Amino acid sequence: MENRTDVNELGEFGLIDHLTKTFKNQNASTIKGVGDDAAVIDNGKNFTVVSTDMLVEGIHFDMMYTPLKHLGYKAVVVNLSDIFAMNAQPKQITVSIALSNRFSVEALEEFYGGIYKACERYGVDLVGGDTTSSPKGLIISVTAIGEVDKDKIAYRSTAKEGDLICITGDLGAAYLGLQILEREKQIYLSNPGVKPDLEEQNYLIGRQLKPEARADLIAKFAKNKLVPTSMIDISDGLASELFHLCKQSNLGAFVEESGVPIHPDAELMAIKFKMDPITCALSGGEDYELLFTIDPKDVEKIKYLADIYIAGEMVKKEEGIKLHTKGGNLHPIKAQGWKHF
Amino acid sequence: MENRTDVNELGEFGLIDHLTKTFKNQNASTIKGVGDDAAVIDNGKNFTVVSTDMLVEGIHFDMMYTPLKHLGYKAVVVNLSDIFAMNAQPKQITVSIALSNRFSVEALEEFYGGIYKACERYGVDLVGGDTTSSPKGLIISVTAIGEVDKDKIAYRSTAKEGDLICITGDLGAAYLGLQILEREKQIYLSNPGVKPDLEEQNYLIGRQLKPEARADLIAKFAKNKLVPTSMIDISDGLASELFHLCKQSNLGAFVEESGVPIHPDAELMAIKFKMDPITCALSGGEDYELLFTIDPKDVEKIKYLADIYIAGEMVKKEEGIKLHTKGGNLHPIKAQGWKHF
Repeated sequence: MENRTDVNELGEFGLIDHLTKTFKNQNASTIKGVGDDAAVIDNGKNFTVVSTDMLVEGIHFDMMYTPLKHLGYKAVVVNLSDIFAMNAQPKQITVSIALSNRFSVEALEEFYGGIYKACERYGVDLVGGDTTSSPKGLIISVTAIGEVDKDKIAYRSTAKEGDLICITGDLGAAYLGLQILEREKQIYLSNPGVKPDLEEQNYLIGRQLKPEARADLIAKFAKNKLVPTSMIDISDGLASELFHLCKQSNLGAFVEESGVPIHPDAELMAIKFKMDPITCALSGGEDYELLFTIDPKDVEKIKYLADIYIAGEMVKKEEGIKLHTKGGNLHPIKAQGWKHF
Repeated sequence: MENRTDVNELGEFGLIDHLTKTFKNQNASTIKGVGDDAAVIDNGKNFTVVSTDMLVEGIHFDMMYTPLKHLGYKAVVVNLSDIFAMNAQPKQITVSIALSNRFSVEALEEFYGGIYKACERYGVDLVGGDTTSSPKGLIISVTAIGEVDKDKIAYRSTAKEGDLICITGDLGAAYLGLQILEREKQIYLSNPGVKPDLEEQNYLIGRQLKPEARADLIAKFAKNKLVPTSMIDISDGLASELFHLCKQSNLGAFVEESGVPIHPDAELMAIKFKMDPITCALSGGEDYELLFTIDPKDVEKIKYLADIYIAGEMVKKEEGIKLHTKGGNLHPIKAQGWKHF
């Protein structure tokens, strides 16, 4: 009998590492391959960055509470977020979909309406894709293409010891929005007569169903002539992204719990769900905020910028990745990420 | 009740047209969006071309007779073919997959082994992708990125009246290879004891399971300083591709049946299946050959090139798209293409 290793044993990141580690790049224009938010290609004049994501019905989204227009919008935004995380400007996207015959042309118009909105909002062009059928459900694959000056690019691997760790926006809200939607779904399934009451939770639900990418902050970096020493977008929770940054920069990190931004609505809802708000920020996903590091001498450039929080410092690898809690304890942070398999 | 238009009513090409017709490009760097083999982006120095395809288990491939290594190879090649069809050189690819838990790590190694082989053979780098789970089956999305000098690019829309229509390789073989595999599958399903006898049909089955893209001819064009006046790859059958070329160039076409290259093995097998060989060439898919047009004054540049056949001439739109049969009749050619929905 043949060997059979379950995909679960490696996890998503381990699996990608395992499958791609023997690949050798053959083109001089390939600057960065697998292992960052986006691939980096030298086009002579500047860098082209390319990122791609696949969204699968029943895994990444639930059609019971995801309006198709929001889904189209979100499918684009999550990819643009990866481009911004390279400190680059997205310019084009391709969108491929496989769909079962339960989707009508009108449903697809809704979906593309959301794609269109995101394109308008972020100034990107839909330049291609593929449309095919699937035996079951909806599968979406978006590729985003961006551009960045060669001296402005921000990798995951270039943080230095002593750099300040910065976080944008607030974390954990999208995860809590998902918990609310899941709870209401269960209530509806067991009693279809009950109308869900989501009115008071606009913020959390909006963060889950219609996230935005931080184009605004990339623009502010440019205006203030700041190039982060490293950057990654927060799609799988702060813990997982910190882990990537530390691993690739060969460093450790020291994070202050009080420096991790959490929205008051998220604080309250976490407590309602009997969860620790900081756990939601560390391990919840889909916030699409940015985690980046700066040289301490650049602190003046961000000090007065809204929506950016200094949360800690990059330290030697040997010191590990640690959270200094509000209670004064020092906890190791473990990468969770999404486990889809 | 809401309007519900079935996706079938529009077909694949109609659907894409319908969903993207209102999109307006916002970036000056977007030279060509939806509607060619690849999107074209001006990167300052030259053009970046981008193409993407989605392959869905049960729609585009059948795991019963598709070895995973071949599948990986083919998934890359079909995308590279689109890049070559722009007269461009592919440089990078991204590969995203969604897979159910019936796939083991060893199975994925096979699949990536095929991807790796194609990358080596065509000199492209795997630079990114996404790996996630699917509730059912395997879904593959590949994006290929290429490069071309601005004055060498070949679109679908730039053929001129009087240009010669050229076809590479031979057509219909991949379709007939598929028919053989499907037949053997049915025999196996009704009697698992019977071992399929495919030995004599290596050529046809190879064309289906392990196609190649015409990198060699693009290189010869460059060597002979030939830039086709228009070009498209033959993935959906000659009829469908002729239709695209004519529609976008606002012309008609006159094709000689005797000029359409068909391999002797395909001729024989078509007859065995009681099909007309020219129908297989016109409406069968997945040959990944090139259909292109040249200015008649360039005929000397291709006359002595192996594997290129002059099959007809571009004519006025009013004359339609017609096939001059070996029997002396003039038949209108209808685009078939794949109907997956």
